[in-house]
Amino acid sequence: MVSLDQLKELSRPSSSKIVLLVIDGLGGLPRPETWRTELEEARTPNFDSLCADSVCGLAELVATGITPGSAPGHLALFGYDPLRFTIGRGALEALGIGFDLRKGDVAARGNFCTVDREGLVLDRRAGRISSDICTELCRQLSGIALDGADLLVSPVKEHRFVAVFRGEGLSAELSDSDPQQVGLAPRSVISLSHQAARTAEIANDFLAQAKAALDQSQPANMVLLRGFSQHPDFPSLGELYKLRPAAIAAYPMYRGLAKVVGMEVLETGDTIADEFDTLAKHYQDYDFFYVHIKQADSAGEDGDFERKVRVIEEVDAQMPRLLALDPDVLIITADHSTPALLRAHSWHPVPVLLHSRWCRVDDARQFSGRACATGALGRFPATQIMPLALAHALRLDKFGA
Amino acid sequence: MVSLDQLKELSRPSSSKIVLLVIDGLGGLPRPETWRTELEEARTPNFDSLCADSVCGLAELVATGITPGSAPGHLALFGYDPLRFTIGRGALEALGIGFDLRKGDVAARGNFCTVDREGLVLDRRAGRISSDICTELCRQLSGIALDGADLLVSPVKEHRFVAVFRGEGLSAELSDSDPQQVGLAPRSVISLSHQAARTAEIANDFLAQAKAALDQSQPANMVLLRGFSQHPDFPSLGELYKLRPAAIAAYPMYRGLAKVVGMEVLETGDTIADEFDTLAKHYQDYDFFYVHIKQADSAGEDGDFERKVRVIEEVDAQMPRLLALDPDVLIITADHSTPALLRAHSWHPVPVLLHSRWCRVDDARQFSGRACATGALGRFPATQIMPLALAHALRLDKFGA
Repeated sequence: MVSLDQLKELSRPSSSKIVLLVIDGLGGLPRPETWRTELEEARTPNFDSLCADSVCGLAELVATGITPGSAPGHLALFGYDPLRFTIGRGALEALGIGFDLRKGDVAARGNFCTVDREGLVLDRRAGRISSDICTELCRQLSGIALDGADLLVSPVKEHRFVAVFRGEGLSAELSDSDPQQVGLAPRSVISLSHQAARTAEIANDFLAQAKAALDQSQPANMVLLRGFSQHPDFPSLGELYKLRPAAIAAYPMYRGLAKVVGMEVLETGDTIADEFDTLAKHYQDYDFFYVHIKQADSAGEDGDFERKVRVIEEVDAQMPRLLALDPDVLIITADHSTPALLRAHSWHPVPVLLHSRWCRVDDARQFSGRACATGALGRFPATQIMPLALAHALRLDKFGA
Repeated sequence: MVSLDQLKELSRPSSSKIVLLVIDGLGGLPRPETWRTELEEARTPNFDSLCADSVCGLAELVATGITPGSAPGHLALFGYDPLRFTIGRGALEALGIGFDLRKGDVAARGNFCTVDREGLVLDRRAGRISSDICTELCRQLSGIALDGADLLVSPVKEHRFVAVFRGEGLSAELSDSDPQQVGLAPRSVISLSHQAARTAEIANDFLAQAKAALDQSQPANMVLLRGFSQHPDFPSLGELYKLRPAAIAAYPMYRGLAKVVGMEVLETGDTIADEFDTLAKHYQDYDFFYVHIKQADSAGEDGDFERKVRVIEEVDAQMPRLLALDPDVLIITADHSTPALLRAHSWHPVPVLLHSRWCRVDDARQFSGRACATGALGRFPATQIMPLALAHALRLDKFGA
């Protein structure tokens, strides 16, 4: 496998266009009633006829047997080895709510929690307070003034929030305040490197002031912080692959991930059709499009096999519009599997379909996990998807003479 | 994947024989008229019936999506990771014309170019002068006497030549004189390490004398040098794998590559039948044979689908003679794909057929990209071909107890 540096050296500008269609959580498992997966159950005449002009396979996002989170799954699809390119928990939480995290910011995941009179943690999640209460408490904490940094506190969901410290010379090399179990007191934040000393003081000042501010609040009378981290500093898709990349994604997390790798994030609507409208509208302006369909994953997480089938069929119905744009390379795949039977992400490799004038067509004649397992790409690391996309778009020079 | 050192440790001498038949550029793409590749279109009854006693797969020479040059493609087939074992441009150019490059020589790729009165480059290729003029100019330059090195100047094609400096203690750690664009003066050669200082002086002396010698020549009145490099210092096939290797190749480049990895290069004729004559003649003298068939690649580069089909059929027709020799292991594959539709090398993995008494036969029943995609070897790195060849020739010890 070539390194990103080698790929960068071989890549060349071109007018060819690549569309990477990510159907989140697409991979599934057969339900016992029919012995067919969500993708096999779905009527997908367009996907299936595409197979006749495509090469297929099964991609592993992180590594064999490993269930990917959304961030590592996407990083792999974009060509970044997710075992090497990692995003800190705080930064990821900020990206997930669409927070405008800037270089230099230090972000932490926060929990509202309950402590007893001695200050020992009774409940790390404060009884999972409602999101409304969380929003109100975040508003309160936002009033805290710190010496040497601005404070930004944003609600996530239930007891979860994000705390962002913004200022000059901050460092995220900090220990968690979360003791990870009840019966212990929240810990002081400790600097793990010399240059983080001042940031540790700022974080501890915040914790002390938060404790005072929440003193009368019940059950959420304290906060816990963990996963201090900064905006990741990854090479951009544009500089690595010499293309102009754009992202079409309705959900904040995926818009945030696209920004991290230097994509332009396009305004789009909430429906699947909206996203394909956006693609058509901007098709002349970019040469790499990442299109993200969230709804399949949501249905999988809800254990709703039928709904996931309908989402897949809805995406299939958009294919004629997409193919009318005539991209040089079209890849349809997923950032991970979310089998409705498991109601969760899973480790199963994801189906991959690569359609291009220059692909060597294989015998897979249906877009499904089972058919893709017989495809010529075999079972392969998802980080190979970008090299394959660039190769089929004739965007890579020959290696050696 | 085992390292070459580990493979060397496990390899053992044996009387078994291995034939590696490389059909250059064999991999193809389906043409729209028949939806079949060159290999699928060709009538290859012998290859196909071999499949019934073989294990098949698709090999990637350099890495997924990467189009291999001939040198990296061959190095991978011989077991050397082409991302690690690289050959400098000057050395490769020398090998390509069959120049007898020796250890210690420093070779550079040369261009005849045109400079204006101020010495600025007007045309980096001197209007692509004819090969005849190039030969005559090289003869002229060969008369230049240098202090501390012998000079050997050999024509390649059109404006291209090879300059070789031969002497004691030379180093190739030198910058190019080629400014890579018009409007600039040729650069002085700069030593990139302490021990290259004297070689830089010698190269600059050559450039100054060449300028004087070509002063009245039009349009080729100057030279540009780039890619200074020495004969690569790779471990030999013989020492790595404990076998006596011989190469049968009609073209200089492949004879040169075979020498680089320590093969004996056998005299042979120009036709495909000549090469198989040579194999039969020397079959008792060696235990590893690399047989190189150039014509399939040439047809692919010319975009001549039909001719490539005929070349493949011509090789197939030689199979009964080859099988009559009864090699313990026969591998048929390629150093890269050259689809006639692309008229160039491509990134598509190459078909591999491994025939041996000890192979576990799979269901592939035709020698083609599509059928090999279903083979038991799957899609795999070409550097695994040598370990597989040695294993099936019972030339590797058990690893561990």
